[in-house]
Amino acid sequence: MSLPLSAKVPFGGDYNPEQWPEDVWKQDYRLFDTARIDLVTLGVFDWALTQPAEDTYDFALLDTIVERAGAEGRGICLATGTGAHPPWLAKAYPEVTRTDFEGRKHRFGQRHNSCPSSPVFRRLATELARRVARRYADTPAVLAWHVGNEYGGACYCALCAAGFRGWLRDRYGTLDALNEAWYTTFWSHTFTDWDEIEPPSALTEHWRGPDHSAFAGITLDYRRFTSDAMLTNFRDEKAAIRESSPTLPVTTNFMGMYRPIDYHRWAPHLDFVSWDNYPPDDESAARMALTHDLMRGLKDGQPFWLMEQTPSVTACRDVNPLKRPGLLRLWSWQAVAHGADAVLFFQLRASRGASEKYHGAVIGHAGRADTRVFQEVAELGAELERLGPVSLGARTPARVALLFDWDSWWALELSDGPSRLVGYQQVVLAYHRALWDAGVDLDVVAVTADLSRYDVVVAPALYLLKGDLPQRLEAVATRGGSVLTTYLSGRVDENDQAFLMDVPGPLGQLMGVRVDEWDARGPDVVNPVRLGDGADQVDVDARLLFELVIPQGAEVVGTYQADFYAGTPAVTRNSFGAGDGWYVAAGLDQVGVSWVVRQVLDRHDLLGPHPDVPDLESAVRVAADGSRLRF
Amino acid sequence: MSLPLSAKVPFGGDYNPEQWPEDVWKQDYRLFDTARIDLVTLGVFDWALTQPAEDTYDFALLDTIVERAGAEGRGICLATGTGAHPPWLAKAYPEVTRTDFEGRKHRFGQRHNSCPSSPVFRRLATELARRVARRYADTPAVLAWHVGNEYGGACYCALCAAGFRGWLRDRYGTLDALNEAWYTTFWSHTFTDWDEIEPPSALTEHWRGPDHSAFAGITLDYRRFTSDAMLTNFRDEKAAIRESSPTLPVTTNFMGMYRPIDYHRWAPHLDFVSWDNYPPDDESAARMALTHDLMRGLKDGQPFWLMEQTPSVTACRDVNPLKRPGLLRLWSWQAVAHGADAVLFFQLRASRGASEKYHGAVIGHAGRADTRVFQEVAELGAELERLGPVSLGARTPARVALLFDWDSWWALELSDGPSRLVGYQQVVLAYHRALWDAGVDLDVVAVTADLSRYDVVVAPALYLLKGDLPQRLEAVATRGGSVLTTYLSGRVDENDQAFLMDVPGPLGQLMGVRVDEWDARGPDVVNPVRLGDGADQVDVDARLLFELVIPQGAEVVGTYQADFYAGTPAVTRNSFGAGDGWYVAAGLDQVGVSWVVRQVLDRHDLLGPHPDVPDLESAVRVAADGSRLRF
Amino acid sequence: MSLPLSAKVPFGGDYNPEQWPEDVWKQDYRLFDTARIDLVTLGVFDWALTQPAEDTYDFALLDTIVERAGAEGRGICLATGTGAHPPWLAKAYPEVTRTDFEGRKHRFGQRHNSCPSSPVFRRLATELARRVARRYADTPAVLAWHVGNEYGGACYCALCAAGFRGWLRDRYGTLDALNEAWYTTFWSHTFTDWDEIEPPSALTEHWRGPDHSAFAGITLDYRRFTSDAMLTNFRDEKAAIRESSPTLPVTTNFMGMYRPIDYHRWAPHLDFVSWDNYPPDDESAARMALTHDLMRGLKDGQPFWLMEQTPSVTACRDVNPLKRPGLLRLWSWQAVAHGADAVLFFQLRASRGASEKYHGAVIGHAGRADTRVFQEVAELGAELERLGPVSLGARTPARVALLFDWDSWWALELSDGPSRLVGYQQVVLAYHRALWDAGVDLDVVAVTADLSRYDVVVAPALYLLKGDLPQRLEAVATRGGSVLTTYLSGRVDENDQAFLMDVPGPLGQLMGVRVDEWDARGPDVVNPVRLGDGADQVDVDARLLFELVIPQGAEVVGTYQADFYAGTPAVTRNSFGAGDGWYVAAGLDQVGVSWVVRQVLDRHDLLGPHPDVPDLESAVRVAADGSRLRF
Ligand SMILES: [Zn+2]
Ligand SMILES: [Zn+2]
Ligand SMILES: [Zn+2]
Repeated sequence: MSLPLSAKVPFGGDYNPEQWPEDVWKQDYRLFDTARIDLVTLGVFDWALTQPAEDTYDFALLDTIVERAGAEGRGICLATGTGAHPPWLAKAYPEVTRTDFEGRKHRFGQRHNSCPSSPVFRRLATELARRVARRYADTPAVLAWHVGNEYGGACYCALCAAGFRGWLRDRYGTLDALNEAWYTTFWSHTFTDWDEIEPPSALTEHWRGPDHSAFAGITLDYRRFTSDAMLTNFRDEKAAIRESSPTLPVTTNFMGMYRPIDYHRWAPHLDFVSWDNYPPDDESAARMALTHDLMRGLKDGQPFWLMEQTPSVTACRDVNPLKRPGLLRLWSWQAVAHGADAVLFFQLRASRGASEKYHGAVIGHAGRADTRVFQEVAELGAELERLGPVSLGARTPARVALLFDWDSWWALELSDGPSRLVGYQQVVLAYHRALWDAGVDLDVVAVTADLSRYDVVVAPALYLLKGDLPQRLEAVATRGGSVLTTYLSGRVDENDQAFLMDVPGPLGQLMGVRVDEWDARGPDVVNPVRLGDGADQVDVDARLLFELVIPQGAEVVGTYQADFYAGTPAVTRNSFGAGDGWYVAAGLDQVGVSWVVRQVLDRHDLLGPHPDVPDLESAVRVAADGSRLRF
Repeated sequence: MSLPLSAKVPFGGDYNPEQWPEDVWKQDYRLFDTARIDLVTLGVFDWALTQPAEDTYDFALLDTIVERAGAEGRGICLATGTGAHPPWLAKAYPEVTRTDFEGRKHRFGQRHNSCPSSPVFRRLATELARRVARRYADTPAVLAWHVGNEYGGACYCALCAAGFRGWLRDRYGTLDALNEAWYTTFWSHTFTDWDEIEPPSALTEHWRGPDHSAFAGITLDYRRFTSDAMLTNFRDEKAAIRESSPTLPVTTNFMGMYRPIDYHRWAPHLDFVSWDNYPPDDESAARMALTHDLMRGLKDGQPFWLMEQTPSVTACRDVNPLKRPGLLRLWSWQAVAHGADAVLFFQLRASRGASEKYHGAVIGHAGRADTRVFQEVAELGAELERLGPVSLGARTPARVALLFDWDSWWALELSDGPSRLVGYQQVVLAYHRALWDAGVDLDVVAVTADLSRYDVVVAPALYLLKGDLPQRLEAVATRGGSVLTTYLSGRVDENDQAFLMDVPGPLGQLMGVRVDEWDARGPDVVNPVRLGDGADQVDVDARLLFELVIPQGAEVVGTYQADFYAGTPAVTRNSFGAGDGWYVAAGLDQVGVSWVVRQVLDRHDLLGPHPDVPDLESAVRVAADGSRLRF
Repeated sequence: MSLPLSAKVPFGGDYNPEQWPEDVWKQDYRLFDTARIDLVTLGVFDWALTQPAEDTYDFALLDTIVERAGAEGRGICLATGTGAHPPWLAKAYPEVTRTDFEGRKHRFGQRHNSCPSSPVFRRLATELARRVARRYADTPAVLAWHVGNEYGGACYCALCAAGFRGWLRDRYGTLDALNEAWYTTFWSHTFTDWDEIEPPSALTEHWRGPDHSAFAGITLDYRRFTSDAMLTNFRDEKAAIRESSPTLPVTTNFMGMYRPIDYHRWAPHLDFVSWDNYPPDDESAARMALTHDLMRGLKDGQPFWLMEQTPSVTACRDVNPLKRPGLLRLWSWQAVAHGADAVLFFQLRASRGASEKYHGAVIGHAGRADTRVFQEVAELGAELERLGPVSLGARTPARVALLFDWDSWWALELSDGPSRLVGYQQVVLAYHRALWDAGVDLDVVAVTADLSRYDVVVAPALYLLKGDLPQRLEAVATRGGSVLTTYLSGRVDENDQAFLMDVPGPLGQLMGVRVDEWDARGPDVVNPVRLGDGADQVDVDARLLFELVIPQGAEVVGTYQADFYAGTPAVTRNSFGAGDGWYVAAGLDQVGVSWVVRQVLDRHDLLGPHPDVPDLESAVRVAADGSRLRF
């Protein structure tokens, strides 16, 4: 099962005709004509509409909406509608609403509001998906199924506590194994009954918020459980869909670098990946490239759908600037260049009320076609129409891999010590930025990915090591490749326990170093690092974290210039097999990171076509027929 | 019914002899003689004293206190004493304490601690008011009734939920109407039973605090309900007072620009307005002028009482600077100039214990008359004695109106998008400041006020439009007046739904513009705006919000100078009837706002006597005999 | 009963062999040999180990651990193990977990997790202490008992509410006395039944956090109660130990300037004081000196144990810098110089998992002896071995006392007004810093201490006055001594009620001033103060608080230079008896504070040997044989 079938890049987005009288629909479709909009996502929040009471399903209005879209020649991405539960459900079954990290039981409101462990929620959501699929599986306009919406958040209720205990029994088998994994001899935590185990929250193990836990191992497992519990919700609905729709592809919309959900664990269960791109600001081109690559990497390079982006402004932020002219077009093409096989918006028509009425829309409250925004959308629609099918299914031929790992993200940011100021994303972004500036095509992959196809593997902040990853990284070097990793790598095993060896643990042989200790400092403390020598020498800044390295065979590439460890190594390169292991022991600034990364790329002749033109982005996709598309 | 009768401006304030032995009372009255204090507010927190148990009322001490005040020749503003309930009540009836926005049920403590919907609280508070009035209605010294104290805050308990549902039934009649008003098709919120409706709180619709609601319409209604519920508390007590006191005026002390209570809805139910003036700092002269004018405008220009001000310091702030010498006098006279017919303090004698022991008082802990503060109070007392009755009842003859609207305040600050950085008060303050600097007399009035008497109507951030306001604003212009409004006006109807037309909605004809889109930016982004032309041309800064305007007949008065919309209009003037509509599309700095406001005033020859002397304030009141008092 | 017997300064620290297999123990002891580690603290978090179920005690592993330590020739500080309760206890008896300030009932997790008022917790913790003592009292290696761990925090549950009411009955006897003490006439708070009294929390009297209470008197008493309730826990365990161990000294580890626990009330119940020294940063030398002196002063100058310090980094902070080379040695010797008779670490071997795995340890995860940290530890061990017994029991001969008072700390920081920006510790630190810079030996003592041995008594921010302290301070001056106090002194009595007299209350006669009023300003407002005259004149800055002083006999030493009170006194000296009272009315900067303090010291010829060498610290201890040790 792969992506939905289409003759060109689908163009359109979320559409809510149920909010409007039918005469507005008519105006909308004429404007869709103008803008070449050929796909509508329907029904994302229709639960209250399609099931107005526990024993009543009513598809009359949705039928009309679906029929109209089909009659107008539009493709449909049809949602099961379980992204938010209806008021009657919360009233009848208080168990369905969540209990938050602070221990507060919520009542009806907002969206993303269902406890993933609630049997009632699971039963009714699955049944709704079943009925939606049964009803519309044979509607030719329906191209894909959209389950739930932006899964996320967490619940800490008693049902989730029970679910967590069951999940732990599956994982550990015995309490002895669990006690060992969680290191419960510390602080008198030895569990003697499964029922003694509580979800880690502000009421139990946490002392200053979700990242401050007395037992990171417990919290790490709760994050895994939460991600899995919601995945079960998705899988339940997908299975119900499959009962009547054996072949139409199923997705749910991801949110890029979204910490609470381990998309690597989810991706095998989706037929195709789709995601919602809401960059934090105008300066996010590199970050978006990384996120597109991450999303493309979820299913081994398979193209994805850009399920949502705003045509102009967001609404939920403190400050919501508009997309400057041309950015909508530029960013849409960036998505295509990085693997998007659909370009969709949230939203096609602006709501009149509630929290998203000011969120950008193709059609605004006045229903005009002569707005700047509508015109930019229409021009993009025309361009995509001219593009035709050529990019569909095309692949990215990368020889460089960037490792991205939710477990490392979670464990690093949970850690008490060395520094709360080091963020996983920030480290990854810096190394990605260096690769992006260098114009290299790259894949962003899980630590479980096949690394045998890459010449260079960049693994920033590879904090938690699991499985045979160290061996596979060594294999990359053995056959002549380069592996680069950084400070705060090789620290803990999958239970968040320190390795009983020198840092960087099982990466030590490959890196040829041992870390004797480490120094963390506030953001205004700089330790200059001198990189290279001779004409190539450069002085850069390092901040936040400084590991003190004692080479065990590695060559020194850069040294600290200040403090009592001045002159000791900050960057090293170790010959290993036919290749190398590079270790960056400090929080180098972007210039320093880029310098190191280019050293690595140079050895493999991997610099892109215009590596020194700032902010020029290039990307290559290879179509099914072998033709290369250069963006 | 109007203000209490008095032969001069009453001078005095809150007095708590129940905290002291009687020999202290005697010292106090001799000091009151020295300071010409002729009015005491008694009994504001006496519930625990006057009703020590549910079945026991005990007025013995209050009798003595009231008798003494009368015997000493002082007027009395007598409180019902329901500003805080006693411990026994909270213990016997846990329902009376509030549940907060976070869903936490409070127990006994603080003040302002009663659930406005609690039947027990309502019954007992009303009964206490009834008994107080019955007992003292014929006491000649009693000049006025003071109900509760500084009504405010909010409650989210089950009783309030039930009260809210009843209020909604009254407002909407049917669930269909409610669903339509709240736009519940969005996010699957269609309500099918009144009991499904929850107070909007951190446990239901809110996601980051009281201003971040998924459904602003629900929250807006809850604010209206809360204001109304407390108004019902006030009205209950007033009705009970009226049973035995048919003519003495009744008030409660307002708090100026206090967001939780819509004083425009309350004012008709008070016989006279009184308020507590605690400016945030020494630089608040303009702000206080605005607030006095707002308070005076509540009852169509009727004078008010300045019920509280501190003679020196506050206590509850992080930093409590003292009032510099002379400020007490200056600010008291400012109040009189703007319509105050009483000058009162909190507090006459400082408490020994609890949270207000360091709050400024006429008499401090040492009981001295030779403090700086006491001497300034005494000098002011002497001045007011010399003033005599001349200012009592005098009116302000204003030709300029500034609109102030709680609904717009609430809805604008609830809005998701365009910018959380734009505060309603800040916009209003800037336009008021321009008028104040120009030395013009003005009224601050509700959007429902009669506008036919004004030449100029300034309506900053008139976000929510209700009733026939657009027509009445057009009428001002039709007959030759000027109407000025700004960005973020004409956005939503009274249900917080966007108008299905160009911004500024029903104000578009009057303003002769349409807003195509808008840009919000952080506080450090400046877009310069060029105002006027020729010799009059001036460049000012604009920040935070920038609407992109397409004139529909309006003349361009100012243009943006930067960004892709450089050269487009930032300020416009539209000829409408014999007058004009002025539209300011961006967050101009104070110089820019003042420039525009003076353009408007100039056309009506309304600049004050010394418009260019900084920080000089002037005000005019016209006495009942027609004489003009110039301050 | 005094300190544990030992032939030299014990050296070692917390050791958790229960976390490791026995072969690791063996490696550890060989490394201990290298580092001259001769004392291990065992069993601090062993409750889950020694009592795995309510009816099961299992000392098998602890027996082995204790035996091994003894066999290896190490002394043992043996913990009762009640610093954290086990999961089964929380599950079986939910009452044992705490309810926090926000009213949230916690469930099992973390440490310091027991409600001090819970009968079940008290019974079982006491029984465990009884059994541990009975089992190991005759083990020769055991030198001392360690009860609980770092007592602290607070609980607001119903059991604590009941405990609080009992404590109040003991304190006040009658509700009338309580109502008078708490000034409950204010805000209708008169209590008519003990059960109406609630713990002051976010749900009752507090409005912005633990320091913002409507009734500081209630909160002050709750802090006293909390400190006393935990003291009862300690005393319960100690009594149980005494049943079988009549002579071994008992301690618990304090935390220096830790606000929640009044160590002056605890100290008489400990046989010797021990504390954990985790300075906030590298610049804390003066602060640590103060804290050591405070700890030494708890038992009238008796030496204390330095129970914990990290050999390198902490883990729980946002940023955890390493101790620069040499600091470990320097700070350990500073402790000895100020009265430490033991130098111990947390921790001897780093945990593999949970929240302290990155906390510094003598032995790291790799088990190496060739780390920088281990080598510094070993060098220190050798030095202490060479020192031998000479410093044990030595006393500090101080003629200067600095008063430190938990009641003043609590009450000042609870106060509404004048300024939340004035912190008790900050004021004390500034005056201590001045004494420290001057190189003077000083004692830091309680306000109840015998002052007759001191020439100079420095009492910064002596906000709350209790007992006969004013008389004893006057006695110091009468016999020729100097007393120095500051702004915010002499404000309230022990019930937090203002004195009904001029500020500084009962200190007014000694100081010869009255404070007419006070001005608080933000941190960027400076009022320069001119100190002294002639050649000695100096201009310094004052900030935050400015009291306006009218001398009543005192000589003016410094004057304000700005604002309307320019020229009035900021610092005064009053002749009283044969000595003086010095009053500093404003928040002088460090230069100003030091100037005043040196004036005072000069009069008594008390400046240290090198008062002008910056950051040079000196201290003197006098050994039992009278020999002086100079550090
Ligand atoms: Zn749940
Ligand atoms: Zn309520
Ligand atoms: Zn408790």
